[in-house]
Amino acid sequence: MDDIIPTYLAAIEDELYTAVRRANGTGISQLNDMLTYHMGWQGGLKSNKVRGKRIRPLLVLLTCSAAHGDWHKALPAAAAVELVHNFSLIHDDIEDRSPLRRGRPSVWKRWGIPHAINAGDAMFTLAYLQSIRLAEVISPSAALMAVEALQNACLHLTEGQYLDLAFEKRNEVTIDDYWLMVEGKTAALFSASTELGAITASCDDQTQNAYRNFGRLLGLAFQVQDDYLGIWGVTDITGKSNQSDLTARKKTLPILFGLSKTGKFAERWERGSIDPQELNEIINLLESEGGKVFIQAKVTELIDKALNVLEEAHPAGEACENLKNLALNLTNRQV
Amino acid sequence: MDDIIPTYLAAIEDELYTAVRRANGTGISQLNDMLTYHMGWQGGLKSNKVRGKRIRPLLVLLTCSAAHGDWHKALPAAAAVELVHNFSLIHDDIEDRSPLRRGRPSVWKRWGIPHAINAGDAMFTLAYLQSIRLAEVISPSAALMAVEALQNACLHLTEGQYLDLAFEKRNEVTIDDYWLMVEGKTAALFSASTELGAITASCDDQTQNAYRNFGRLLGLAFQVQDDYLGIWGVTDITGKSNQSDLTARKKTLPILFGLSKTGKFAERWERGSIDPQELNEIINLLESEGGKVFIQAKVTELIDKALNVLEEAHPAGEACENLKNLALNLTNRQV
Repeated sequence: MDDIIPTYLAAIEDELYTAVRRANGTGISQLNDMLTYHMGWQGGLKSNKVRGKRIRPLLVLLTCSAAHGDWHKALPAAAAVELVHNFSLIHDDIEDRSPLRRGRPSVWKRWGIPHAINAGDAMFTLAYLQSIRLAEVISPSAALMAVEALQNACLHLTEGQYLDLAFEKRNEVTIDDYWLMVEGKTAALFSASTELGAITASCDDQTQNAYRNFGRLLGLAFQVQDDYLGIWGVTDITGKSNQSDLTARKKTLPILFGLSKTGKFAERWERGSIDPQELNEIINLLESEGGKVFIQAKVTELIDKALNVLEEAHPAGEACENLKNLALNLTNRQV
Repeated sequence: MDDIIPTYLAAIEDELYTAVRRANGTGISQLNDMLTYHMGWQGGLKSNKVRGKRIRPLLVLLTCSAAHGDWHKALPAAAAVELVHNFSLIHDDIEDRSPLRRGRPSVWKRWGIPHAINAGDAMFTLAYLQSIRLAEVISPSAALMAVEALQNACLHLTEGQYLDLAFEKRNEVTIDDYWLMVEGKTAALFSASTELGAITASCDDQTQNAYRNFGRLLGLAFQVQDDYLGIWGVTDITGKSNQSDLTARKKTLPILFGLSKTGKFAERWERGSIDPQELNEIINLLESEGGKVFIQAKVTELIDKALNVLEEAHPAGEACENLKNLALNLTNRQV
């Protein structure tokens, strides 16, 4: 990666820090602790591992810059999308009963469900407060457009999350259902990230659409790769327990692919819960029925599409190279 | 009450209905059901009782109108504050483990905690999406000001909710702590309601401040009256189980007043949980130590202050009369 990435990451972290400090009412230092802990700024394991990769805010700044904009003006938008992402993680961890997040106890595990719900709500509000700060650096009408784009993405996000929760209880989930869910749960915020970058760079509608679609396809690829890691990933790299998606019976894309084949994998899945000792055998079944190859090909296909769409936006400079690298590196993503 | 109230209430309900229908993605009809159920538009007991009183949106419209504005333009703001209120109720019910809301099972009780958290998030997003619609009827800069005022209120709301949750576990809670909590939990959204009404009417800063402060004082009075009803209210009117605040050991104002007297009420409270059979005796203790009179006087004092501040805003017409009546009726509030 080139030199602009560390500069952008440092600026994002500063902007996020300032944003979260706005929750500063009297007597609420513990609420602030929950937010700063979740963001990875305190609470042990002080390393980049607990902060997340800040991919979404990077996309905002890189898009703005590649579209001939001043990336500094996009900082409020960058912080806003990252705060939305983190609000959703706080709530998702409660909804999925996930005790760990980035190798540490999740917020609800540490402070209890009631405080965690409220901390997520506070983070969500800080995200919106941050997005409105765009009005200080771009025109009021552009700021309103950006804020509305973010809000639409958030609505789509909750719709995707609804589907994800609903699929847990549903026996019949198709691959089409999966894409509908992922469009909301993951792609919506990725597409809002590139869209907000384009808005802050004052792109025309066509270019803005191309950037939005680039983000969307990247988001889809990102989720499929995440599903891949959920089965073939390595524990000490992802910070999640290995192969948990099979034992947790999550209906991710590899699993839905395997079920659609109605072969030995599907037969075994229908018989019920999977022991950790059986995992290797069941993963072998899935691979022999084409699951691993299908997923790898799908990620490559989505990344190719994303890069083609990106060309339509005529991105420029070092930021353009970084956007492409970010997409290509996704397939080799290890953290 | 005068004729404008039914007109306003009907317009509010229409606007809310349109707002909630924006959550209309494919396959999410059950999510929409949760939202419309909570709003009181479906799910049995179809009456005004299950819809709430819509006090906050009424305040928005009445303020706009009393400040010589066109109340139709304030409708997006009115719907937004009511949606924020309802988002917070969905989450509060989970946080407080309240199985009932307005006499019916609360959202989490009916659909489970994960779906209820997400439905609240969707409602919160719809609130913001509604607030940004102001840009269609007022200037972009005024719309941005209104959206930001609402966001600040939401942040204050989560800070107040944090304190409310924290007080449950804390032994020492003072009356000062109580006011700090209520400023966020209740007064913030009331003051945003009148502020948004004033912004849509293009008031000058001084008038806007007066309206905001009127809303704030009304919110404080509203909460103290709610605390009154939590001990001296009647079950079949409030829809809550009678005198639950004492058995639920909620640190409401009457109880904190009683504790501050360090008399027989405080002595009994410190001894631990209260049986329903003891309630009358303990309420008598609280009354004999001045608790009931203190609360009634506090509501009257706050309403008097609110009405004085309202005069500074020079409100006019039928809407002005309704604002005053709304404040005065609070003390006789039965639903």
